Amino acid sequence: MKAAFYEGDKKIRIGECTCIEPEDNEVQIKVSYAGICGTDLHIYLGHMDKRVKFPQIMGHEMSGVVHALGGEVKHIAVGDRVTVMPLDPCGKCQACLSGHSHICKNLKFLGIETPGAFQTYWTVPAFAVFPIPDQLPMEHGALIEPLAVACHDVRIGDVKKGEYAVVLGGGPIGTLIALVAKEAGARVLVSEINPFRLELLKELGMDTINPKEKDLVEYVNLQTQGTGADVVFEVTSSATGAEVMTQLPRTRGRIVVVAIFSQPPKVDLHRFFWRELKLLGARVYEREDFEKAIQLAAAGKLPLDRVISEIYPLEDLEKGFKQMESGGQAMKILLSCSR
Amino acid sequence: MKAAFYEGDKKIRIGECTCIEPEDNEVQIKVSYAGICGTDLHIYLGHMDKRVKFPQIMGHEMSGVVHALGGEVKHIAVGDRVTVMPLDPCGKCQACLSGHSHICKNLKFLGIETPGAFQTYWTVPAFAVFPIPDQLPMEHGALIEPLAVACHDVRIGDVKKGEYAVVLGGGPIGTLIALVAKEAGARVLVSEINPFRLELLKELGMDTINPKEKDLVEYVNLQTQGTGADVVFEVTSSATGAEVMTQLPRTRGRIVVVAIFSQPPKVDLHRFFWRELKLLGARVYEREDFEKAIQLAAAGKLPLDRVISEIYPLEDLEKGFKQMESGGQAMKILLSCSR
Repeated sequence: MKAAFYEGDKKIRIGECTCIEPEDNEVQIKVSYAGICGTDLHIYLGHMDKRVKFPQIMGHEMSGVVHALGGEVKHIAVGDRVTVMPLDPCGKCQACLSGHSHICKNLKFLGIETPGAFQTYWTVPAFAVFPIPDQLPMEHGALIEPLAVACHDVRIGDVKKGEYAVVLGGGPIGTLIALVAKEAGARVLVSEINPFRLELLKELGMDTINPKEKDLVEYVNLQTQGTGADVVFEVTSSATGAEVMTQLPRTRGRIVVVAIFSQPPKVDLHRFFWRELKLLGARVYEREDFEKAIQLAAAGKLPLDRVISEIYPLEDLEKGFKQMESGGQAMKILLSCSR
Repeated sequence: MKAAFYEGDKKIRIGECTCIEPEDNEVQIKVSYAGICGTDLHIYLGHMDKRVKFPQIMGHEMSGVVHALGGEVKHIAVGDRVTVMPLDPCGKCQACLSGHSHICKNLKFLGIETPGAFQTYWTVPAFAVFPIPDQLPMEHGALIEPLAVACHDVRIGDVKKGEYAVVLGGGPIGTLIALVAKEAGARVLVSEINPFRLELLKELGMDTINPKEKDLVEYVNLQTQGTGADVVFEVTSSATGAEVMTQLPRTRGRIVVVAIFSQPPKVDLHRFFWRELKLLGARVYEREDFEKAIQLAAAGKLPLDRVISEIYPLEDLEKGFKQMESGGQAMKILLSCSR
């Protein structure tokens, strides 16, 4: 049994690790595929050293097969194909008590506050384990978690059929939001500057724009007869994104903040007043979003194959990080963890 | 017949003015009282010289008695006690067509884009005229317009019975928001730094805090058992207000932007993501807010007498502006226009 350990200072070590036997209400999963998330990159770059424990096994986007069960586990059997919703809420705070445990004040994130999926066998709380349908390829199973993020964002944005949606930032999450919004019946424009991603988005049937080459606000006004977009997803976490997001929506339009801003950017609050805009923060997903993601992926309507740009062996995690860091030719990178 | 004319460069001239006879679908009102709004102060200070016409008669918060009718006017009679909802929307843009004509793209504001109420006789479109009940004192009638703003803000903020609301800024609009939120059953805290206003707010039964003397975030957390406020109204248009507004709400709490920010402040978008906050822009009012304001004021449940700090003759408009500018001992200043 092997694992990828983050040892701080951009150092990844591949090594043997102890198999953690499942206790009561736990499930041990043989990991098939695990996706590298932007959050994992943040950990690798040292931005979250205060939150993780050394050596940290990262990874929380995955698919696998149940290998062993602890006591009391009823909803899952050995051999089941599964994925994991990696949230462990306290159940006691105001958010939990009002039914929104995904924004629990004391939320533990599996793979950040606990060891993650970048290993052969991953032992997790049973409540976090979701079966996936037989027709869903294991590679796609590893996309359920980020797809659930997109489902949550689109639900928070209340995207309706026939609406005009703009996604600022066409990385993996932006691309999945665009796909889910399109599936919901919206016309979707993705704004992105990376040529590799722009090309891929076009192949996925998206309308795209490179805002460095063309005026984004002008283009959206043209597309909407001067009215503006119904909904805008900010997924760039850039000052430019925070600036343009208020210029795009129609009166009473919505802006969904998906990106994680490390610094408070300037935001045109006058525009909120003038057009009665709404800004909606969106974080991870709720159970219904996770179920919706499984259902959407299993229906085979989304071109998820194309969202996976590489599948590397677990040993190549560092290579994957360097590829993501260079901002180049990558969309979602998966690790094959059991071969 | 007299009027107060703004002639630019902080110059107000009191002089005779021509009586404008009402045409079809117009109403001529003998103005009883007219309130000085923050917007009028902005005009006086020269901030809106591009929007007004010289010489400009300002004023859009008023009460009066119908003096003459143009043709086609059916819902109002000579002698009726009335107030005016000073919005003139185009009826054709996306906002108008979707039922939100108060944020019409081509909105004309009576008293800004047209002559206003700081004169003896004011002629306005008939659709803007609302009768007020006999039991409503004329002084209170002049508060209907700002009270409608407060009703709109509280409605946009979806304030519910038992909720904890924080109002940042206890000027006339902040004070009216606090009163309406309290009437809706909320516990209300007003944050204000002006000692005169703090004293008045306390007399109105509000919980108050001076954030220069006491830690506002700490106080709100203490009052809400660490949970945070359900809803926050930003009425200061200050960088400090924009900073603290995101620190106060509970998970999934609401922030209503009432203030008019001339410069985009820094806003902690991370907090929106982390707590799934909502930011809601609110501008003027809709018809139902105006009707609610009339109903609330007529019911006599709000201490509106105390919100009026001065009643000056029309000739003293400049004195009123100087008093507001000094930021001193004033809440709402009314002008008596027919004496």
